[in-house]
Amino acid sequence: MDPSAVGGLASRLMKGDRRALSRAITLVEDEPRAAALLMRRVRRARGGAFILGVTGPPGTGKSTLVDKLVKKYREGGSKVGVVAVDPTSPITGGALLGDRVRMADLTLDDGVFIRSMASRGWSGGLSRAAARVIQLMNAAGYELIIIETVGIGQSDIEVVGVAHAVLVVLMPGIGDDVQVSKAGLMEVGDVYVVNKSDLEGADVMIVDLLSMTRGLGSRSPSVLKVSALKGEGIDGLVRVIDALRDRLRKGDRAMQLRSTKGMIMELARAAETERFLRMAEPRAESLTEKVLSGELSVEEAADRLLR
Amino acid sequence: MDPSAVGGLASRLMKGDRRALSRAITLVEDEPRAAALLMRRVRRARGGAFILGVTGPPGTGKSTLVDKLVKKYREGGSKVGVVAVDPTSPITGGALLGDRVRMADLTLDDGVFIRSMASRGWSGGLSRAAARVIQLMNAAGYELIIIETVGIGQSDIEVVGVAHAVLVVLMPGIGDDVQVSKAGLMEVGDVYVVNKSDLEGADVMIVDLLSMTRGLGSRSPSVLKVSALKGEGIDGLVRVIDALRDRLRKGDRAMQLRSTKGMIMELARAAETERFLRMAEPRAESLTEKVLSGELSVEEAADRLLR
Repeated sequence: MDPSAVGGLASRLMKGDRRALSRAITLVEDEPRAAALLMRRVRRARGGAFILGVTGPPGTGKSTLVDKLVKKYREGGSKVGVVAVDPTSPITGGALLGDRVRMADLTLDDGVFIRSMASRGWSGGLSRAAARVIQLMNAAGYELIIIETVGIGQSDIEVVGVAHAVLVVLMPGIGDDVQVSKAGLMEVGDVYVVNKSDLEGADVMIVDLLSMTRGLGSRSPSVLKVSALKGEGIDGLVRVIDALRDRLRKGDRAMQLRSTKGMIMELARAAETERFLRMAEPRAESLTEKVLSGELSVEEAADRLLR
Repeated sequence: MDPSAVGGLASRLMKGDRRALSRAITLVEDEPRAAALLMRRVRRARGGAFILGVTGPPGTGKSTLVDKLVKKYREGGSKVGVVAVDPTSPITGGALLGDRVRMADLTLDDGVFIRSMASRGWSGGLSRAAARVIQLMNAAGYELIIIETVGIGQSDIEVVGVAHAVLVVLMPGIGDDVQVSKAGLMEVGDVYVVNKSDLEGADVMIVDLLSMTRGLGSRSPSVLKVSALKGEGIDGLVRVIDALRDRLRKGDRAMQLRSTKGMIMELARAAETERFLRMAEPRAESLTEKVLSGELSVEEAADRLLR
């Protein structure tokens, strides 16, 4: 895009123009230079959106649940943005996000903006792009922005690190594979939802989660049972999310810090990794030769690469 | 561990002492300083192991297939090391690797060394640890080292980047979720296996893979149908792996470069990320405050963080 056109795009976006937002997101994904310019243009927009991260193992019904939430918030009149992120996509190719067609009825609604994003290389770039898309949606006046990931790996956790609050979606029967009690998961959630609540083991899972969250002291996450498909427990979940949103509205410092620091760190880390790869790639070849000839060990070569 | 004891540990390891190898791997995971010392001690060991990466979506039967391969190679007399890596583990907590107990009969065999590793924080640290464990196994005289990942995200691909050759395990029926044709997967594999070959759709998948690999020109990966559980097609797979191993033995330059460069890059990137986090963390807080007060945008704060 011509740099001179970026200003006009930014103004249209800040007036809430959907097409401008769509075009702006494409810039963020495909044109780094124009994107940097654009981000500078929208920096003064203060949207005040509440950013909700949604994560959890594949197959737990995150997308269906997000759909229900979007509908509820639309009934309440809020403009809702959804960023669906697939950090694992070199393989899945973002195909897991294909089920977004389910949301067709939502995409006809002008107050809803849904965007799927998949990694086109290294995962750091995706975190940055997602952080920027959220800023753009915020500038365009979206009041609730949901950032949803398809998996629950390290990079998923980084992706939801830009949220004000995080909803973790689980389901009965995954206890065998996914030990919730282990490091990481219990640190990340503000709300834990056991979806598909009609499946056997839902209550046991709730009890387990309650006993685990009790150990977390003052920061005590909510634990809820829902059935996204049947629409059960959604109102209760909305109330819990509203309470979190209210906390942000009242100026909750911890929430503001978390999201803003998350954004800064993701943007900086992405730039740092790019810098490293740009610096390292051309020199790695000759260092590799030195290792193969026995002149250096791989550890020594790595040390030299960093100098 | 006392630094003065590292030398003795390294010598015992290079003589093939299993306990020493086990202790050394724990050092690599838990004691960075002693680990660095240890890596310097084993650097002169030239094992010449063939490193095979095994990756693919969860549930495709990678572990079962690896078990069969290990047994076959033991019958042939090779010492085999297996590093099973779970980069998604902040959530799964490495629990997915729990099914390694299946391998109990293998662990009684002195010529087999199996180690499961899970991320204890950021995924970069795990890639480095895995690269070091492979070097240790190599120094201890293991001739075939299999590095297996549980998923198929970006970090899994980084993990197998240290291998000489990569085996991608697929199964019929995952085509709906996992579009093999997308960027990434077709770049990474030297061998594609359709496991659970008795399931419907196996032949169609083989045909699809063949037509896709045909487009890759000179670098034409093998495509095979197996049933790990029934032991079908394993001999054919072993022949394909043997051919790759032979290529390395005969000094295939591309293979050597790939694995060695992968090791160097993973080690360097891990150190770089650590450096960044150490530098950024203490400064991020005050920059976040400046963003919240409206003095800076998040993009500007990220720029400052990098200066």
